Amino acid sequence: MAPTSNATLVYSEIPTEAPVAGRHLKRVVDDSFDPDTVPLNGGFLVKTKGSLMDISATTKALSLDPYMRGKMRDPSKKSYTPAFELNKPLTTLGVGEVYRSEHPSVQAGQIFKGGMQLAEWAVVPPAAVQFGRVVENPEGLPFSTLIGACGMPGATAWVGLYDIGQAKKGETIFVSAASGAVGQIVGQLAKRDGLKVIGSAGSDDKVEFLKELGFDIAFNYKKQSTLDVLKDNGVDIFFDNVGGETLDAVLATINNKGRIIACGSISQYNVPEEKRYGLKNTMNVVTKSLRWEGFIVSNHDQTAFNETMPKLVKSGEIKTKEHITKGIDNGEAFVDMLDGRNFGKALISLE
Amino acid sequence: MAPTSNATLVYSEIPTEAPVAGRHLKRVVDDSFDPDTVPLNGGFLVKTKGSLMDISATTKALSLDPYMRGKMRDPSKKSYTPAFELNKPLTTLGVGEVYRSEHPSVQAGQIFKGGMQLAEWAVVPPAAVQFGRVVENPEGLPFSTLIGACGMPGATAWVGLYDIGQAKKGETIFVSAASGAVGQIVGQLAKRDGLKVIGSAGSDDKVEFLKELGFDIAFNYKKQSTLDVLKDNGVDIFFDNVGGETLDAVLATINNKGRIIACGSISQYNVPEEKRYGLKNTMNVVTKSLRWEGFIVSNHDQTAFNETMPKLVKSGEIKTKEHITKGIDNGEAFVDMLDGRNFGKALISLE
Repeated sequence: MAPTSNATLVYSEIPTEAPVAGRHLKRVVDDSFDPDTVPLNGGFLVKTKGSLMDISATTKALSLDPYMRGKMRDPSKKSYTPAFELNKPLTTLGVGEVYRSEHPSVQAGQIFKGGMQLAEWAVVPPAAVQFGRVVENPEGLPFSTLIGACGMPGATAWVGLYDIGQAKKGETIFVSAASGAVGQIVGQLAKRDGLKVIGSAGSDDKVEFLKELGFDIAFNYKKQSTLDVLKDNGVDIFFDNVGGETLDAVLATINNKGRIIACGSISQYNVPEEKRYGLKNTMNVVTKSLRWEGFIVSNHDQTAFNETMPKLVKSGEIKTKEHITKGIDNGEAFVDMLDGRNFGKALISLE
Repeated sequence: MAPTSNATLVYSEIPTEAPVAGRHLKRVVDDSFDPDTVPLNGGFLVKTKGSLMDISATTKALSLDPYMRGKMRDPSKKSYTPAFELNKPLTTLGVGEVYRSEHPSVQAGQIFKGGMQLAEWAVVPPAAVQFGRVVENPEGLPFSTLIGACGMPGATAWVGLYDIGQAKKGETIFVSAASGAVGQIVGQLAKRDGLKVIGSAGSDDKVEFLKELGFDIAFNYKKQSTLDVLKDNGVDIFFDNVGGETLDAVLATINNKGRIIACGSISQYNVPEEKRYGLKNTMNVVTKSLRWEGFIVSNHDQTAFNETMPKLVKSGEIKTKEHITKGIDNGEAFVDMLDGRNFGKALISLE
């Protein structure tokens, strides 16, 4: 094929508070990208623009996840995941069809799921195969689902609930950011397991969705006090996606021997260190014999998840809500997600 | 014997900040206490004043522990341990000789260790036998040791380190309030197990004592920044007796997969809720995959501890430092302990 254009989302400046689309993140287009000659250096090329190859389905979906905000930092600050490199495209989890490959275990036409540049065309280095994989997709699920409910966010829900939370039938779980990519899966799994499920979200639409999913109690935390809801409903397990004031309310009200599954702190990601919410109720970790535990999903075995979740999604037992942005923007979709303006799993699809 | 006097330490007012000796706590004496006729209601009487029965050793030792501050609260605030009753003597863990008994499993002359009033003569209700026990004391240890290194504080160190911390040889542990009743035992056990041990304390004397105990690093947190010490010494396990700023420094610097053994928060006990230190670095529970876990020692099996610790203390392998106040005061010894003016396990001895 002839050279084409390749849009990417480039990380152009370290934000101190909320990143601004077009400033900290910028759409940058290479107008003379040649998929047939771009050097692969032993890796492979994941394509977009399905129409070129006569595929009507989406050929690439790229994940937008809150943890990516943590990578937009001064690289001298160490963390479990390296900082993004300035003036290069963001990297993210994506799924797409392989256009051309120099890698022995990845063939053109196969579906690859793993880390890649947030770009229309992404050259994936050979090392990335270690963290990604060729996907069979026997259920024929949309690519968006493969990086959502059946991907990292779904696995995060699964590992958190089962490996960390050790949830038992009859217990009560509270999920914050419950309509988000992880929260919506946590709540549905917990319902299947016979737990009482409470969820909070930031709009009435989202609350309505949680009720459709079968949440026993769902509330809009902007209208109703989290503390008030929780103090009337003894919570055994908190799946924490937000941190901050919500977490403090949980610490104040959670039952003895409660567990806090530390998954994320989205309320604090855009807050500079000196302005972060200071938790006041941590003494209760002692007095209530709490277990508060964080985890990085990639350090946990995902075999059971990978075997089970695609079937549950295919059968409709687990429903998914996705917030799909078509095409690469200046970072607006990412910024919106950090602010809770997405409704469901945020992702970019390229067709 | 003839009626005698019985001094008690009475809880007379709920403190909002630091309790004041003589105001929130008061020595109250009953001048006509008759050990031979006082109603036992099926319980038994633990005596003091050994000279009356020609015993030269201490006949009673009463524990002063930081958790007791948590019981000086409005009783409508629920916690794992009930609030003290106003205008009654404090209750605490004590050990002493039984003078008279109506309880079938407790005989006069035996040593009883368990909950009792902070009083020279304490009538122990029958229900208390469930939480206490007759002690054989084959090692002939001083009573102070039975409520210190071989009592609840020692058991707290043991359970925290082994059940919660799951410490492994070669790891680094940091102990705050390290010269205190719990901290000194934690550090010595950890050294025996081949850990690198770091301890902080609030005076140079205490630091010197920690070095004598074999701590690898000991520092005075009032002179040296905890954050500075910790950032140069990757900590795997934190045994937290103090909470607050020290805990925040640990959260900032602890290694990935670190464990925080939540034992106490003495820096915050005298601080009213609205002035409590707000922890800023709790996001690291997620990013570092930390496990932060509280426990109540009485919920854990103490068989191994009870079998092992008296021998270690008797042989001198585990050393103990005790801060002994002779006789019942107006609460000064308790108030001092909350402020760190004790040096070692705080207790009251009655001879």
